[in-house]
Amino acid sequence: MAPLVRYGMVGGDAGAFIGEVHRAAIRFDTRAELVAGCFSGSSGEKNRLTGEKLHLDKARVYADYREMARAEAAREDGIDFVSIVTPNSTHFDIAREFLLSGIHVMCEKPLCFTVSQAEELQALSREKGLLFGVNYSYTGYVLAKVMREMVAEGKIGKVISVNAEYPQEWLLDDLHAAADADLKLSVWRKDPKVAGISNCVGDIGTHIENFIHYVTGLKIKRLLATVNRFGHPLDLNANIIVEYDNGANGAYWCSQVAAGTLNALAVRIYGDEGSLEWQQEHPDFLRYTPRGEAPRLLTRGNGYIREEAGKYAILPTGHPEGLHTAFANLYRNFITAVIRKRRNEDTSGIDFPRVEDGVNGVKFVSAVIKSADNNSSWVEIN
Amino acid sequence: MAPLVRYGMVGGDAGAFIGEVHRAAIRFDTRAELVAGCFSGSSGEKNRLTGEKLHLDKARVYADYREMARAEAAREDGIDFVSIVTPNSTHFDIAREFLLSGIHVMCEKPLCFTVSQAEELQALSREKGLLFGVNYSYTGYVLAKVMREMVAEGKIGKVISVNAEYPQEWLLDDLHAAADADLKLSVWRKDPKVAGISNCVGDIGTHIENFIHYVTGLKIKRLLATVNRFGHPLDLNANIIVEYDNGANGAYWCSQVAAGTLNALAVRIYGDEGSLEWQQEHPDFLRYTPRGEAPRLLTRGNGYIREEAGKYAILPTGHPEGLHTAFANLYRNFITAVIRKRRNEDTSGIDFPRVEDGVNGVKFVSAVIKSADNNSSWVEIN
Amino acid sequence: MAPLVRYGMVGGDAGAFIGEVHRAAIRFDTRAELVAGCFSGSSGEKNRLTGEKLHLDKARVYADYREMARAEAAREDGIDFVSIVTPNSTHFDIAREFLLSGIHVMCEKPLCFTVSQAEELQALSREKGLLFGVNYSYTGYVLAKVMREMVAEGKIGKVISVNAEYPQEWLLDDLHAAADADLKLSVWRKDPKVAGISNCVGDIGTHIENFIHYVTGLKIKRLLATVNRFGHPLDLNANIIVEYDNGANGAYWCSQVAAGTLNALAVRIYGDEGSLEWQQEHPDFLRYTPRGEAPRLLTRGNGYIREEAGKYAILPTGHPEGLHTAFANLYRNFITAVIRKRRNEDTSGIDFPRVEDGVNGVKFVSAVIKSADNNSSWVEIN
Amino acid sequence: MAPLVRYGMVGGDAGAFIGEVHRAAIRFDTRAELVAGCFSGSSGEKNRLTGEKLHLDKARVYADYREMARAEAAREDGIDFVSIVTPNSTHFDIAREFLLSGIHVMCEKPLCFTVSQAEELQALSREKGLLFGVNYSYTGYVLAKVMREMVAEGKIGKVISVNAEYPQEWLLDDLHAAADADLKLSVWRKDPKVAGISNCVGDIGTHIENFIHYVTGLKIKRLLATVNRFGHPLDLNANIIVEYDNGANGAYWCSQVAAGTLNALAVRIYGDEGSLEWQQEHPDFLRYTPRGEAPRLLTRGNGYIREEAGKYAILPTGHPEGLHTAFANLYRNFITAVIRKRRNEDTSGIDFPRVEDGVNGVKFVSAVIKSADNNSSWVEIN
Repeated sequence: MAPLVRYGMVGGDAGAFIGEVHRAAIRFDTRAELVAGCFSGSSGEKNRLTGEKLHLDKARVYADYREMARAEAAREDGIDFVSIVTPNSTHFDIAREFLLSGIHVMCEKPLCFTVSQAEELQALSREKGLLFGVNYSYTGYVLAKVMREMVAEGKIGKVISVNAEYPQEWLLDDLHAAADADLKLSVWRKDPKVAGISNCVGDIGTHIENFIHYVTGLKIKRLLATVNRFGHPLDLNANIIVEYDNGANGAYWCSQVAAGTLNALAVRIYGDEGSLEWQQEHPDFLRYTPRGEAPRLLTRGNGYIREEAGKYAILPTGHPEGLHTAFANLYRNFITAVIRKRRNEDTSGIDFPRVEDGVNGVKFVSAVIKSADNNSSWVEIN
Repeated sequence: MAPLVRYGMVGGDAGAFIGEVHRAAIRFDTRAELVAGCFSGSSGEKNRLTGEKLHLDKARVYADYREMARAEAAREDGIDFVSIVTPNSTHFDIAREFLLSGIHVMCEKPLCFTVSQAEELQALSREKGLLFGVNYSYTGYVLAKVMREMVAEGKIGKVISVNAEYPQEWLLDDLHAAADADLKLSVWRKDPKVAGISNCVGDIGTHIENFIHYVTGLKIKRLLATVNRFGHPLDLNANIIVEYDNGANGAYWCSQVAAGTLNALAVRIYGDEGSLEWQQEHPDFLRYTPRGEAPRLLTRGNGYIREEAGKYAILPTGHPEGLHTAFANLYRNFITAVIRKRRNEDTSGIDFPRVEDGVNGVKFVSAVIKSADNNSSWVEIN
Repeated sequence: MAPLVRYGMVGGDAGAFIGEVHRAAIRFDTRAELVAGCFSGSSGEKNRLTGEKLHLDKARVYADYREMARAEAAREDGIDFVSIVTPNSTHFDIAREFLLSGIHVMCEKPLCFTVSQAEELQALSREKGLLFGVNYSYTGYVLAKVMREMVAEGKIGKVISVNAEYPQEWLLDDLHAAADADLKLSVWRKDPKVAGISNCVGDIGTHIENFIHYVTGLKIKRLLATVNRFGHPLDLNANIIVEYDNGANGAYWCSQVAAGTLNALAVRIYGDEGSLEWQQEHPDFLRYTPRGEAPRLLTRGNGYIREEAGKYAILPTGHPEGLHTAFANLYRNFITAVIRKRRNEDTSGIDFPRVEDGVNGVKFVSAVIKSADNNSSWVEIN
Repeated sequence: MAPLVRYGMVGGDAGAFIGEVHRAAIRFDTRAELVAGCFSGSSGEKNRLTGEKLHLDKARVYADYREMARAEAAREDGIDFVSIVTPNSTHFDIAREFLLSGIHVMCEKPLCFTVSQAEELQALSREKGLLFGVNYSYTGYVLAKVMREMVAEGKIGKVISVNAEYPQEWLLDDLHAAADADLKLSVWRKDPKVAGISNCVGDIGTHIENFIHYVTGLKIKRLLATVNRFGHPLDLNANIIVEYDNGANGAYWCSQVAAGTLNALAVRIYGDEGSLEWQQEHPDFLRYTPRGEAPRLLTRGNGYIREEAGKYAILPTGHPEGLHTAFANLYRNFITAVIRKRRNEDTSGIDFPRVEDGVNGVKFVSAVIKSADNNSSWVEIN
């Protein structure tokens, strides 16, 4: 008996790392199978070799994603969903094409560059009755789900302050490079035409925005920001103060030039009954302090196993889970939604990041750049 | 084109966690494919359902591992290797059967219970010219390989002292249970007939022994030990002092009753030119102190990427890798060895834990229990 | 031979904790001796008992600080300096009185409430040729001095981003108290008449401002802020974005309602050649990451002993130094300045926080509250 | 009114660091005053200068400790106690002299070299009715006292396993020095005639022994050990397995050649109801895990203030206390005992390390070396 769900991929040839992360994550769920792909739009050779390596039928390794959308939509055994892992500038066109062909979409973040494009994709997916996931992968960590439940249950009371950050160091060398040098910042990320209005905030600042929203349920009402471009066309560092719909403030910081940091997403959420602290690079650990008590070091297991969140744990406590399992958790729910959709069952309660989250991300980036370019004045966001 | 390598599994029905960890790890390598299995010897139903979930041909879901060995050996498209993930007491018989059928073996640790059994498997695999891997999974972590290279390159000089431990807390409740109660210590682990002469040392102490040997290359010359059974038939806690072939001493501690610890394998290796410290629960980080300098916090990437070890990194630095990738690295090399073997190429230099390591593990457990039961006197081991 | 320097204290009766911290810190330096005091202005009994406990001459235990200033100034063996450890609202009057009497002053922070008062004290001390120290105690930690030297030497290059914070939890219960309840926030701190325009920013936010300036030498050009009062008259939480004179930005956060934090002053300073990270609660450790290398964990000793800063280390590395030694370092330099001043030697290069730093602190607090109350718009500060 | 208690010091001239640590610690308690000393037996000049720096009466700065004992005993205002901070080989003679003169003694550890000497001092102090403290300074930390109370109250149940260590790195260079080189290991520590039978175990191993006994109340019944001398006359590294009087085992490790460690005394105590973990270099923090719950990070304050132990906290929680306050706590109780003794009050319940602890320390060192030199066989100790 073949797997229940067939999927295809756009982008992610064998040389790129992130495509294989998606595929490896999906393989954790034996209900889904890769059957088609357009892995490289620019290199037929890379495309072909990737298809071979993945044991695909040659006929379903497409040179053009539009052709793929059409052909797969026409097949009786065509793909149920497509995973889009291409550069940011192409997400909109590709996602739109597959939606128009009636195929569910899971798209890398950021969804696209403009709020109007994002809202168009949102409207189109609704109109077509299609699932549209956005790969905010960090929400797939088991402890992200535990935090979300704890906040919902009132474990930390009303949120009164947030401090969240995502510093990296990988572009620090660019500050020392001549303007015309071969920078670490790859072409598609440093070029506004390809990367959009923002580099750092769009790439990693959005993860902060999405993660805090996922965990707390809070919506950003307005924000103000400074961004630092250090002579480059796009931002490499940003400080943001947000005001949530409940009146509390939060401070967000993202950077790609912070020596000694890698993917150091770290969130600290303070409520009037306690606090939560979590770091992406140590995803299995969570510091929880109830008001008036000593901090407790929670893990996926000890002393605090959440019925709802615990089900995501693939390994027993003490065995490190990494980014692959976060991706796997995200895809697992998406695949469940695809199966339920096919059976005309309700999918609204299934937990995966959706096109609405992608729209919020684009709005957030847009507001940050607008504030920074307008003397750091408040910009209303919702 | 189908994958190059076909494999089968004995044990690991859908209800057991570790079988799926193995399968998910093997799926990281698209060169190998599961085609056969005897997932449950006791429940035909579990066996059948696991086969279905994994989309196997019903004819290759076997009720008996002996039948599986025979049938697969007879097929032209039979399995290249078998992964054995059954309880400890069954490893010897199953591994022996597949070796006799000419099939490569990857076996869970501990290899078996007695030194003579272990040496029989070693001799048989040599005689048959078959690969025999033993799943000392922690050696698959990228930083385990980095440490091994650093020691080999002399980064810490001559090893002069080792402090290593593997505490867990999961059996602590058993100290409070009535003798006839339903203990956490599952039946097959607490029963000497199933688990052998040792519980704690056999289950986790052997990981210390293997890991230190893997990283340093040192062999244990002799050891002495105390074990604590706390009224139970088998050991739950053990302290061991070893003497290596280079004259240095090491202290090993393993426990299953240490409140506040999960799978806290931690190794600290001191040389006359520096030291290394690593913890399994934070596998992406390594503390390295060169003599006379400040400690450095290495990760898979920053400031110390090892050419040889770096190739094992599946994710860019800063993205946590977990136990799955450690398993995946172990299987990746084993699969490469299987392919080379088929081509009659040399496989001796390929890095994966082998039957020799399994033999050493059995010798270690045997010596620890012998010393503990003989007033903690020294027991020669090599 | 008697000690070279005689001092007196205003405030700090035996029941208050901070006065004794000052006295114990000064005792680290055998060159100075307490000889006079006005420990409690409100309780003659407390004043007398404190004098007794400290073995003071009864005649020099004064009921009124003005009398003390006059009497000590008139004595041949009168005090060389006074240490003021009273509530914030009294600093200005007391400091002014002793300056007018020709006595050097060491004053607790914040110096006073208004910029004009602060500038008056600054002008008066200059006019009188008197030393005026302000107790920004955290700059006394050995590693604060090491960081300062490292930045000055260019170890982290040009500062491009700062992230600094000082969260506490001790007022969290006040968010749950009725408006008229007996709050933890002591009377003199919660009352604008006594505490000034700010609670949280004035009490701990100023430490961030001073500490970053001390370590980096950067001056704040302008800032914007949000403060949260949660229904109370004064701020309990604040987020601040600053712009330094070199164009870089910094994010400061202070809070007294952050569950799970104590005196968690933490600074992270990012330059284009490296970074520094330090936490007040672990004052002996410093994380230093040179660009492109792994982070290094420095302490007072290992692998990075600074000639200039190292001299402050009272204990060999590995022996924890605490807040007392930070205070002791601060007073040691102040006492040296007092001795040099007596000999008409130059004191300009001696490292202790001065009235200028106190003025900057008052300006900072004033600007933060002004911005927060003006829709978080930028406020120029220098 | 002069302080209640007068004391003198033997050893600790101005150039040595540890004498000043003792004096600074005693100054935390305004009830005691230094009035006499024999700071250097070898250099009259150092002795004189130290006396001057400390503002002592010249007549009470003695060239010879015997003269000091006699003269002070004869004075009406003579010293109440002497603090002995000389090299190990001199402790016995000096302590004996002051006891014979009827003066209370606080002596640095190790007390002396042989069990018979130690027992002689114990007998003599009893006979004379004098107090005899031994400076096991780490027991002065507030959290050491908290741990002791928690164990006594049953918070971790019955102790079932201990893992404790004290590694340092400061002698690592000696492993690379020629035999006749000027080693870091100072003359009096490397010479058996001055340091006794042991270097590493005597200097730091005894701290482990004393600290675990202080916290748990357990007595060592027997032990076995390996020591490593690496070609030097005395031990530089040791591994010890102990058996307590309650049947549990503990593993102790001490080293002076462990790269990357400073004074890394760390203890982990596992009971059948929970565990405690503490590190000397982070003395304000304590990890406490109740059975079946998540670990809790205690400090001097939050969520676990101990009435009895809390009284030792000199600073509010969040303000680091260092080694000086540990010494201060130890001396505070000793001074209290001196005062009570003078009033013929009971001093038996006062918490400070006594000559009995010193005797235990000498027995421990003696047993470790005996076992190591006798093929690591068990040596009965109590």
